[in-house]
Amino acid sequence: MFSFELLAKEGEARAGKLYTAHGLIETPSFVAVGTQATVKAASVDDLLEIGIQVIIANAYHLHLLPGEDLIERMGGLHRFMGWHGPLMTDSGGFQIFSLGVAKEHGVGKIGSIFPEERDRGGHFSSKRGKPLVRIDDDGVEFISHLDGSVHRFTPERVIEIEQKLGADMILVLDECTSPLHDYNYTRTAMERTHRWAIRALEEFKSTSDNAQALFGIVQGGEYRDLREESARFISSQGFDGYAIGGSLGRSKEDMYRVLEWTIPLLPQDKPRHLLGIGQADDILEVVERGVDLFDCVAPTRMARTGTLLTREGERSRIHIVNARFKDDPRPIDEECDCYTCRNYSRAYLRHLFMARELLAISLATIHNLYFVESLMRQIRCAIKEGRFKELREERNIASENS
Amino acid sequence: MFSFELLAKEGEARAGKLYTAHGLIETPSFVAVGTQATVKAASVDDLLEIGIQVIIANAYHLHLLPGEDLIERMGGLHRFMGWHGPLMTDSGGFQIFSLGVAKEHGVGKIGSIFPEERDRGGHFSSKRGKPLVRIDDDGVEFISHLDGSVHRFTPERVIEIEQKLGADMILVLDECTSPLHDYNYTRTAMERTHRWAIRALEEFKSTSDNAQALFGIVQGGEYRDLREESARFISSQGFDGYAIGGSLGRSKEDMYRVLEWTIPLLPQDKPRHLLGIGQADDILEVVERGVDLFDCVAPTRMARTGTLLTREGERSRIHIVNARFKDDPRPIDEECDCYTCRNYSRAYLRHLFMARELLAISLATIHNLYFVESLMRQIRCAIKEGRFKELREERNIASENS
Repeated sequence: MFSFELLAKEGEARAGKLYTAHGLIETPSFVAVGTQATVKAASVDDLLEIGIQVIIANAYHLHLLPGEDLIERMGGLHRFMGWHGPLMTDSGGFQIFSLGVAKEHGVGKIGSIFPEERDRGGHFSSKRGKPLVRIDDDGVEFISHLDGSVHRFTPERVIEIEQKLGADMILVLDECTSPLHDYNYTRTAMERTHRWAIRALEEFKSTSDNAQALFGIVQGGEYRDLREESARFISSQGFDGYAIGGSLGRSKEDMYRVLEWTIPLLPQDKPRHLLGIGQADDILEVVERGVDLFDCVAPTRMARTGTLLTREGERSRIHIVNARFKDDPRPIDEECDCYTCRNYSRAYLRHLFMARELLAISLATIHNLYFVESLMRQIRCAIKEGRFKELREERNIASENS
Repeated sequence: MFSFELLAKEGEARAGKLYTAHGLIETPSFVAVGTQATVKAASVDDLLEIGIQVIIANAYHLHLLPGEDLIERMGGLHRFMGWHGPLMTDSGGFQIFSLGVAKEHGVGKIGSIFPEERDRGGHFSSKRGKPLVRIDDDGVEFISHLDGSVHRFTPERVIEIEQKLGADMILVLDECTSPLHDYNYTRTAMERTHRWAIRALEEFKSTSDNAQALFGIVQGGEYRDLREESARFISSQGFDGYAIGGSLGRSKEDMYRVLEWTIPLLPQDKPRHLLGIGQADDILEVVERGVDLFDCVAPTRMARTGTLLTREGERSRIHIVNARFKDDPRPIDEECDCYTCRNYSRAYLRHLFMARELLAISLATIHNLYFVESLMRQIRCAIKEGRFKELREERNIASENS
């Protein structure tokens, strides 16, 4: 049911085909984030027109609202959300990290939409506060961010939740660490993640109907020996795919190094997923290092604040509410073929944002997602034709010249 | 360029064809409200798929944001908002009424989404306060609701604004009265509206390029002799179409009476537009009395709060956040063919509203607009086949049985 076919390689960059119970994914692929069983502000028809191949929803969020039992009764997540293509669910490990140690340490992860925060090394200060989580070897107890109710996740329980949701690719429960954790704690958490991975896999094997694929998660923070140890250990367990999670250091350079340590140790014949990373300017970098799948909220989150991806502009983006777009008749990006760019001017989009019209957010979301998908199509084509390096240089020059 | 063809009549109900510079409108027709150059939460493609024939934008709102000059520079309103079908603009008379006397009197108009307010006779208390408007015979001075800047509208100035916007059908500036105004003030305001109508028509004739059609507005509040006098006067001026505006009394029955006094006095060979009215349960009533066009925010506004139109249910609507829809696998309306009903369950829509996802609003908007359009298609067909009365009775029985 689930298999990965490698079509071409250029350096570490790979082009392939991932077959799932709900269809094919051409890799490398962006995975659109649909945390609460919807990609924010986009309909399924929008996503199909954009060319989105796969969506990742979130077991933590869907467990709290509306609950996995309800979704199962409604025929599973595909049917519930009207998306009949490939679907993943994240385990909630990162969300529990956000409620727990991230709150304690006042840190977040690369992917902030605010440039000044990204420049500080990829971590932003979130409001510090009392952690809402208690982790022990058996699992994790946490307090719902919605209503304060107490919940318990174990590796087995998360598999059960994800089986009820019924996505094509599911992730094991892991423990994410913060860049402020020291070596010793990071090792302790990694070893716990490994024990949880074994338990999750056992639970999965004893209950799976073979329609779902289970991905293991490599942890180990920003420490080379831990990342290597984790990559070797998780690889040896025979998962269907491999994800890279947790703290990837304090800068984009740290993140690239973590990928360079980890990916060569993962099996060549399985897909690799980078969790929660993929700013427009990261994409070429992570694909170059061998990533097949990555999910990131940046395109949709930026859209909601009027930050639109372009081929030119500072950091390849424009802030549409800027007064200079007031009577700009051009589309967001003159080479873009998306619905928004085919039909609307920057002046109109700016008006919609200024007038606080919801259509602003839909149109911006469509553009940003299309922009990323369009880059992914170019990347896949370039790898297959052996000119990925060329594409990478072209794009870098374009962005430096702007 | 602009003409109206009467195809069939059953009692006062009429089916016809309205030819505009941007295409045909089959009447009777719902006019979708696109105040700020967008129908809230719907894209142009959504509207085309739904079957929306015509949109009404607002000269007052667009004058303030982004300004008629900017829209003119961007190629006019059609091009600016990407809608290439028939388009109207309202003059802003009602918005000025809202800033002025409606504030003073603490009244609004039929069309509130809150049933308890509608039951009180179609008027709701809005926050009373100091009026932001000063009306004199020359025109009206008002303070922007956005930034407190001072503006002046005269009948001539409004024509100029609407010519820059470039809609196919435009409305003259009128003075709306409140149901709390006495007979004498209502007469004074009506006579001023008549003088303004003459000035607007003169301005229009001396500047028109013949692509636009100008509609006069009948006023006169809830007083029979004033409504009749106004209908006769405005009809005698030779406008391209006739709108019915202002206070239509304190209940739906008052409104129906106003239509019965007014419409028989309007020319048969011109379209009649009822301004700002058209709850789902009003539609058959107003069409029966000879209305060809009507605009109403109710379908889109109700959508944003999760109130969805159905063939059954109390008052032909359901409140989707109600707990009883939690695991209801049915579409909103089992006979509806809209995108939302073809793809999503009540359970999913409820989840989206509970999770505060923007997609909730888009999907609800699509459904409510489609529901109204679908009723309009049935009505047009029934009038042409001489069975409008039958349709009216069927729908009444369905709604009483539910």
